[in-house]
Amino acid sequence: MSESAPTEGHDGYRGPGLAVLQRHGVTVWSEVEIKAASGRFRGLILPRSETADDHHIVLKLASGYNIGLAAEVIQQITQHGRRVAQYKIPEKEFPTDPSKPNIVLFGTGGTIASRLDYRTGAVIPAFSPGELYGSVPELADLCNLKTEKLFGVFSENMGPQQYVCLAKRIGEAIADGVDGIVIGHGTDTMHHTAAALTFMVQDPPIPIVMVGSQRSSDRPSSDAALSLICAVTAAAQCDIAEVMVCMFGPTSDQYCLLHRGTRVRKMHSSYRSTFRTIGDIPLAMVDQQGITPFRDDYKRRRSDHLVRLNTAYSEDVTLLYYYPGMKPDVMEAMIEKGYRGIVIAGTGLGHVNKLTYRALERARDKGVHVYMTVQTIWGFVGMYVYETGREMMELGVIPLANMLPEVAFIKLSWVLGQTDDRDEVKRLMLTTIGDEITEREPYNGYLVYQGAVPEVQEFLRKIKH
Amino acid sequence: MSESAPTEGHDGYRGPGLAVLQRHGVTVWSEVEIKAASGRFRGLILPRSETADDHHIVLKLASGYNIGLAAEVIQQITQHGRRVAQYKIPEKEFPTDPSKPNIVLFGTGGTIASRLDYRTGAVIPAFSPGELYGSVPELADLCNLKTEKLFGVFSENMGPQQYVCLAKRIGEAIADGVDGIVIGHGTDTMHHTAAALTFMVQDPPIPIVMVGSQRSSDRPSSDAALSLICAVTAAAQCDIAEVMVCMFGPTSDQYCLLHRGTRVRKMHSSYRSTFRTIGDIPLAMVDQQGITPFRDDYKRRRSDHLVRLNTAYSEDVTLLYYYPGMKPDVMEAMIEKGYRGIVIAGTGLGHVNKLTYRALERARDKGVHVYMTVQTIWGFVGMYVYETGREMMELGVIPLANMLPEVAFIKLSWVLGQTDDRDEVKRLMLTTIGDEITEREPYNGYLVYQGAVPEVQEFLRKIKH
Repeated sequence: MSESAPTEGHDGYRGPGLAVLQRHGVTVWSEVEIKAASGRFRGLILPRSETADDHHIVLKLASGYNIGLAAEVIQQITQHGRRVAQYKIPEKEFPTDPSKPNIVLFGTGGTIASRLDYRTGAVIPAFSPGELYGSVPELADLCNLKTEKLFGVFSENMGPQQYVCLAKRIGEAIADGVDGIVIGHGTDTMHHTAAALTFMVQDPPIPIVMVGSQRSSDRPSSDAALSLICAVTAAAQCDIAEVMVCMFGPTSDQYCLLHRGTRVRKMHSSYRSTFRTIGDIPLAMVDQQGITPFRDDYKRRRSDHLVRLNTAYSEDVTLLYYYPGMKPDVMEAMIEKGYRGIVIAGTGLGHVNKLTYRALERARDKGVHVYMTVQTIWGFVGMYVYETGREMMELGVIPLANMLPEVAFIKLSWVLGQTDDRDEVKRLMLTTIGDEITEREPYNGYLVYQGAVPEVQEFLRKIKH
Repeated sequence: MSESAPTEGHDGYRGPGLAVLQRHGVTVWSEVEIKAASGRFRGLILPRSETADDHHIVLKLASGYNIGLAAEVIQQITQHGRRVAQYKIPEKEFPTDPSKPNIVLFGTGGTIASRLDYRTGAVIPAFSPGELYGSVPELADLCNLKTEKLFGVFSENMGPQQYVCLAKRIGEAIADGVDGIVIGHGTDTMHHTAAALTFMVQDPPIPIVMVGSQRSSDRPSSDAALSLICAVTAAAQCDIAEVMVCMFGPTSDQYCLLHRGTRVRKMHSSYRSTFRTIGDIPLAMVDQQGITPFRDDYKRRRSDHLVRLNTAYSEDVTLLYYYPGMKPDVMEAMIEKGYRGIVIAGTGLGHVNKLTYRALERARDKGVHVYMTVQTIWGFVGMYVYETGREMMELGVIPLANMLPEVAFIKLSWVLGQTDDRDEVKRLMLTTIGDEITEREPYNGYLVYQGAVPEVQEFLRKIKH
């Protein structure tokens, strides 16, 4: 934010939104207190995009969050001042150094490296190499950077079409000989995309590092700069040639963790340390000093430009978290709609109630592929332990060990894109590609708040000295 | 297990199962190695129940787990010895002491306090006061005990019918003046039942403590005895008059935690420390020395016998975990099947893709009640932050703050059992009954591995000295 004013007036406001601003004699960049039906809100009126709805006023609160207030609930607006946001990022030419690795950053949307956004009143990506160099100059110490915006979607809108496009562009960049790939991605479904890319882009010779941001870069608590530096460090220097997610380890600005693409899940809606490796320990930590691996069972960087792409994907797969009292019509409806694969996240060791057996019989009779995971998130399916599990296996349900429900959903979609043959589907589902099933879970893999558990601290101390 | 033999022969085996035992000249209680299509298994052949299927052999492995092997995959059985299990628990009369509190233990099924089970080859509850006294004599130091078996179901089969019955019996026991209630329950859906009872049995004057077991009492690592002692201690002595879950705190046999019924979730399929308070800290810890509260914002024990029962429940509610690429037909199918309430567990702050908007419009037009929670499990819904959230609220989706998806499912079922009026449903959903929504989350509420985080250890040290 600065006092120099690039814009004025009612940018982007139309209809009822514009009318309410005019009625109270305020404009974009007015500092105001708004009295609404639901309470009082103090903040800065933000501009809106041309395509936004016409009946909300968007306010940036002191907390950095933006809220939308419907014109009809606004009772009074009192102006306290004016503060125009500087939203243009100073652009500098990204330096080129032939001795540095060449990194490509693919943009998909999301708020990593971002500036104030007219559309949502939130933030838009600072994305060109010049803009990024202006925002995060440390990047030039690490690599030569190229950027390419593939799409601009909130990550909840990522899906098969984007997975396939992303996989193909990764394949081309590898063929072109880049030394590492960074993918900027919204955090909502970053773990789903990481799983999809693990299956679609097999045995890459270089690191493929996904990175996102939980807080936009106009907020003091933003994780954008550190996460981006860590992700580029990993892509440029790391020996791990896998699909990984790079996000904050602890809640404070200390280091990021590299999570394997099939063992990571978003576990908090707002914390910066939201991504957690589940049922395992992360691959490595990264900070501005470099990379500290936690383990050595990873695929190594190679100097060839070879990769195996398989972008098959079926959209006829669904994911069902079982709940008690579930009636068979829920699963039957999916079968009626033509779904060919169902991943169940069962309770406990992988259970559903007896009512659901009728739907499982129907699925079996129609040749629908039904796989079992656990909604406890942590732990293994164990369908041999209780009668319920054994009965369900009789009905054709196949247990998936400790594959995460979301990863199982992505994998079954990928497998059914290739074949509908029952045995072949089972073989592919149970053949591990990137640790989506592991033999066992380390003791410290359960609910580890990384860095806070004494054993992990001890381990980190040992490894550092 | 002991050498004294109460049974012999082929107990419970019929058809192909019996044939394969006879063909290889072995019986129940034979120690064998079985060669099957899927590998070699060493263990003890267990008896089966009369109602079990007729084509499995059930084997107790050295690990304590039981597995079922289909007769047709068994290639060879080699006998190594014989070891007859002692399955009768010595029964002693439970002593009565007028100075001790009167506790009633309701049984619903599950493996808490259990002995070898003929039906599954696993375990059946030791359940009469005399059997419990024979197994866990410490209970007699704590209370006078009555037991009542309400049902005998695996907890994945618990549902509305059982919730209502349980709530009514709790009401009657309170009217009769008991000093505390313990409910033995399978662990799969114990948190769902805890939420249901919190809404159905309001302002009880005494503790209502749910307890289960992750490992049956014939295994050396069983948590049954300690958990039962802790649960009875809580019911007999605790000042907290709420519905709680009492289960192992750490993975080792040290203490149990008391979790509030609406803030607890099963987070590991097999660990004993599986139940975790989410987005908050637990109410208290319990060990054989007594109860250590972690907080004081709980409802106190009273000497009256008053309680407000409300056993309304609608079965027309469903829970939907969103996944990327979800097509609108999934939610539309639920609307077509006549579901009146849908709880979505969205990604991130509570999002779905734009494709799903069509189904949300349909839901709105049909008056279906749609509520939003987060599939990150931890954290709050934040539908004002991004455009997606604001657009969904326009479509009538109502955010549920930090209510857990499973709790929201139970609560919406309970609310729609009472009214279909849009405003009244919303009012009831957002009016907190037992901390199902809290104002904020303590820093230590996120992924706390209880006892392992230095701040929590420090806190426990302070509170103990």
